[in-house]
Amino acid sequence: MKKLLVPIVPAGGSGTRLWPLSLPTHPKFLLDLVGTGESLLQSTLTRLAPIASANPIVVTGTAHAEAVTAQVGERALVLAEPTPRNSMPAIAVAAAVAELADAEAVIGSFAADHHIRDTAAFHAALEIAADAATREDVLVTLGIQPDSPSTGFGYIKVAAGDAEGALAVEEFVEKPDEARAREFYASGRYLWNAGMFVVKARVLLDQLAARIPALAAGAREIAAARGSEQETATWERVWPSLTAIAIDHALAEPMAAEGLVRVVPASIGWDDVGDFASLSDLVRRLAGEEDAQSVIAAPEIKAVGRDSRGAVFGSSDVPVVLVGVQDASVVVTDRAILVVADAAAQEVGKVAKELS
Amino acid sequence: MKKLLVPIVPAGGSGTRLWPLSLPTHPKFLLDLVGTGESLLQSTLTRLAPIASANPIVVTGTAHAEAVTAQVGERALVLAEPTPRNSMPAIAVAAAVAELADAEAVIGSFAADHHIRDTAAFHAALEIAADAATREDVLVTLGIQPDSPSTGFGYIKVAAGDAEGALAVEEFVEKPDEARAREFYASGRYLWNAGMFVVKARVLLDQLAARIPALAAGAREIAAARGSEQETATWERVWPSLTAIAIDHALAEPMAAEGLVRVVPASIGWDDVGDFASLSDLVRRLAGEEDAQSVIAAPEIKAVGRDSRGAVFGSSDVPVVLVGVQDASVVVTDRAILVVADAAAQEVGKVAKELS
Repeated sequence: MKKLLVPIVPAGGSGTRLWPLSLPTHPKFLLDLVGTGESLLQSTLTRLAPIASANPIVVTGTAHAEAVTAQVGERALVLAEPTPRNSMPAIAVAAAVAELADAEAVIGSFAADHHIRDTAAFHAALEIAADAATREDVLVTLGIQPDSPSTGFGYIKVAAGDAEGALAVEEFVEKPDEARAREFYASGRYLWNAGMFVVKARVLLDQLAARIPALAAGAREIAAARGSEQETATWERVWPSLTAIAIDHALAEPMAAEGLVRVVPASIGWDDVGDFASLSDLVRRLAGEEDAQSVIAAPEIKAVGRDSRGAVFGSSDVPVVLVGVQDASVVVTDRAILVVADAAAQEVGKVAKELS
Repeated sequence: MKKLLVPIVPAGGSGTRLWPLSLPTHPKFLLDLVGTGESLLQSTLTRLAPIASANPIVVTGTAHAEAVTAQVGERALVLAEPTPRNSMPAIAVAAAVAELADAEAVIGSFAADHHIRDTAAFHAALEIAADAATREDVLVTLGIQPDSPSTGFGYIKVAAGDAEGALAVEEFVEKPDEARAREFYASGRYLWNAGMFVVKARVLLDQLAARIPALAAGAREIAAARGSEQETATWERVWPSLTAIAIDHALAEPMAAEGLVRVVPASIGWDDVGDFASLSDLVRRLAGEEDAQSVIAAPEIKAVGRDSRGAVFGSSDVPVVLVGVQDASVVVTDRAILVVADAAAQEVGKVAKELS
């Protein structure tokens, strides 16, 4: 398979809407939520391995560096950020590391905790994206073909004109309310923003240097110090000074305003595994029981359903029995037992916050 | 308070619709389901104590005799039936024991695992029943004023004519289907059969002797052997020969056909605590949260609800959290974790059966 890019995988965030499965000490990306035998992070690396032109770079917090290293072994370079500073500093340092090896290298940034069902379609979309990023000094993103007017994602508005390949992006739009989401969905001109960016390392850093100079310079300084005696001291000195900002605000939105962003529409079975409704839907699809009246559970949990449709997560020494329960998940952990209706799955993060 | 009758409390049945709280080894009547600090059996005895004219007689299976004795102490005489033979033999032996002490004694038979909120109204109804049973050689029952067209209970049809006191009963009707239940409820002539019978000990046994002679004779033989060297041998020889039959079929229905049954209409907050919907409703009422959007739990369980209405039973070392769950119970035990919608509460027994 064609080697397309250097994968960058920021692994941060704990996934509070998946509490109590995911906890600050056991963040979502370290968990095998889908039952594949791999954590979401490991699956991400497995999915990217065939198209990786160099060893992937995982950026995670110091608190999780050991666990991440244990999971990825030799499959990736692990960079440990001393404190969370949102996505741009992490991606910039990783880009600077890639740039040092090959300034014209195309990098691709991907979340550590999403799931993609159609790997072949994902690779095909990335090939178009990498081609576009090679030919032009632009930022290329994958835009997910919406299958519903979701209010849970940001949207990417495609400029009128292009019809195939990497299309010009007019703008990025934050999560809309329901009315706008329906409008976006009906128009056919909006795609979901899944936070996947493909761009030359040099282009990313030069664009950043033009907008937030100290951030680009600091990232390059940390990368340059790698392997030297100054490595730790440089991280400790420079990192806290870097602007904490998301790549969307730092680069994607301003570059789109200047016509420097392209999007590859992608139907790849993408899922952000954002909450228990989404996770439940995903495991039901993977089990081929999307529409069935049944209760799905990991093989090690004995789950019994009667007139019920749902999913059971976590681990339990005793059977978990659902009677007359529709569209809900039961989560059993040694931290808490949670019963959550699919329709209320977004609320779990708030409860988790209140309880902790 | 007036001493009205000798209480007889058959304590059998495990309450499979309350699985996994109630188990064959921990039947419903031994559990403090309502959170009063007493088991349902103990509450039953406490409720009857003020009107008891002699020590109550509890009849239970040999498997539970020890646990029952531990719970009731000196508050009742405990008879252990060697095998379950339905309610009539148990009540007949207890009646025969009461008859030996005082042939004209009025006895009252009450389930060990029901709950009554209004004890004063219960006592008032029993006074009317005991008066009627003293004046006439009839079987008197308490008939619960229905507050819904329930299909979960048998009904008692009141004969036309009487308006107060102990009314003539036309017939007992088994659990009806929905259409008939609505008809019964609308007519105002039907009461729920809560299985409470008040009658002279001699009348009960003589009526039984006229219908199932061996059953009455056997019961009297076992009672007569009590305290003698022959006690155990008599139980073992006679008990297995007694017809296994419910008091409803053995006495209540045939006596009603002969005009020998009376009923005292009673509004006493009676609850058979039959399933988790009923239990949940009861604990909500007792907590004064009948209509609240809230999650009720025993004090020792930390339960948290968000946009939820339900109840948590059992015991849990970790918080039990409900999010967006309406009208359901969560039951946490070391045997199983159950989530059951109120509307499906009747189905729990079937699942328990399948799992065991």
